[in-house]
Amino acid sequence: MKRALPVPGWPNLLAAIADWRRAEHHLAVAAAKLGREDDEPIDKAGLRAPLPPIWQWLDGSAFQAHADLMQVAFGTERIEHDKPLMYQGMSDRFYGPTEAVSFPDEAHGIDFEGEFGVIVDTVPMGTSAAEAMRHIKLLVQINDWSLRALAVPEMKTGFGWIQAKPACSMAPFAVTPDALGDAWRDGRVCLDLMVEWNDEPFGRANGREMAYGFHELVAHAAATRDLVAGTVIGSGTIANANYAEVGSSCISERRAIEIIADGKPTTPFMRFGDGCRMQAQTADNRTPFGAIEQRVIQQPTGK
Amino acid sequence: MKRALPVPGWPNLLAAIADWRRAEHHLAVAAAKLGREDDEPIDKAGLRAPLPPIWQWLDGSAFQAHADLMQVAFGTERIEHDKPLMYQGMSDRFYGPTEAVSFPDEAHGIDFEGEFGVIVDTVPMGTSAAEAMRHIKLLVQINDWSLRALAVPEMKTGFGWIQAKPACSMAPFAVTPDALGDAWRDGRVCLDLMVEWNDEPFGRANGREMAYGFHELVAHAAATRDLVAGTVIGSGTIANANYAEVGSSCISERRAIEIIADGKPTTPFMRFGDGCRMQAQTADNRTPFGAIEQRVIQQPTGK
Repeated sequence: MKRALPVPGWPNLLAAIADWRRAEHHLAVAAAKLGREDDEPIDKAGLRAPLPPIWQWLDGSAFQAHADLMQVAFGTERIEHDKPLMYQGMSDRFYGPTEAVSFPDEAHGIDFEGEFGVIVDTVPMGTSAAEAMRHIKLLVQINDWSLRALAVPEMKTGFGWIQAKPACSMAPFAVTPDALGDAWRDGRVCLDLMVEWNDEPFGRANGREMAYGFHELVAHAAATRDLVAGTVIGSGTIANANYAEVGSSCISERRAIEIIADGKPTTPFMRFGDGCRMQAQTADNRTPFGAIEQRVIQQPTGK
Repeated sequence: MKRALPVPGWPNLLAAIADWRRAEHHLAVAAAKLGREDDEPIDKAGLRAPLPPIWQWLDGSAFQAHADLMQVAFGTERIEHDKPLMYQGMSDRFYGPTEAVSFPDEAHGIDFEGEFGVIVDTVPMGTSAAEAMRHIKLLVQINDWSLRALAVPEMKTGFGWIQAKPACSMAPFAVTPDALGDAWRDGRVCLDLMVEWNDEPFGRANGREMAYGFHELVAHAAATRDLVAGTVIGSGTIANANYAEVGSSCISERRAIEIIADGKPTTPFMRFGDGCRMQAQTADNRTPFGAIEQRVIQQPTGK
């Protein structure tokens, strides 16, 4: 994560994932040269999202602790479902890891949501969960920015979220599953996601508690459609049953915990100027995806 | 709609809409040459959707008659909302107008949905409805294929539709609003959509009864996000209050009308082998978008 090499013939990761069999080899050859040949130092301030605009972003909600707490936060009924929860979100832009993120109004309830995600190659309609595992080519780390005050009315329509889910951010490095070693298990990224809000520790929930593995989320998405290469599928906000100990990956969950304890939430949502930092951490303190470290700012008016 | 000319420098319509100011001029110059210079006859069987994969497809549901009937068809509660209804759907593929459309299972309740749509150039976050009108560069006609048996459980999660909304189809010609003359009014495509199912007339509802104009749908979508150039925004299923007279643009509505009249639906959903034809028609019998004319087939197994 300190040196980089351009890989001729592959202008970006979307082009690579569309022809992964060839690209994987070229990328592996380049990776083996890092530190030995004429690589270049990485300028962290210049890092962007690992993917350019993509055709499809499908975000799951696979952590039961998150679903339970959001029900409290939103004051909504328990969601009855026998399949994974999933919505389609904005995919034409992912903020880079240090880009400022602009919103029109603090009153919209600006919140972060720390997640993991997978990038798949082409997945044919009807692919089983077992087969889907082989289509998971890369893993990523995401901040799924959310506007909570707009979320409940949209959710109640049944149509999912448009205004409440603007562009997400992505950590700078997409990694192959084998790069995580034992931390990639049963289609789950079994790493702690370290979340800080204004430089204060906020959460360190682990990705292992997904009710469905990513391969099951991929199969769910592909039940009635071919998934185009480069589709990103998200885990939903990482949350653990022992949230009292590990904290949360979004503000709404903390507010729900406050409601449960005190009858009302006391933690406000984000203000313009606030910062949020997220990075997944291995047992030996490596951060395989790098960090997302951003400020929220007010959308300039008159645009 | 009989002759065509390639326009050098513009490989496809997505490239053109991303730089519309320049493209519009080149396309208008080419259009003026049609029938005078070395144009080519259009092979109708070879026509594809006017857009290649796009980054974003946002489908509204702006016809109150459709919303009222779907509530009956689905047995769901009335949707309380003070903003347009909208979900984000699959945008990486639009079937061409004569392509066969494959689904895994007749039991999913295969249904068509006749709609109009608009293609916008870049729309900045916070654009007003009045300003949004200027960003509507092209109009299209869409069949939003739907799997009704999967729709209600997904809708009840609040997350919108993944499995119930596979790829849509698009009529072959995208047209500029001025090409419709008086039939483009108040951000509405005021044309009858002629729908046939297995060569029998099924509906001829008119696009004028939208509760929100397309410019208002665009502004709704752009409230918290920049809309990427080439975003397509749909009207939702075209339906009229006098549905007893004009019929419907989807099977679910006819089933709802049967439920209202007889307590139960009698019209089944589509079977493999069924055909569906849709074309918008002007008062003087022109069909500005061309026709969508497709068969549904069973998704080959073992893919």
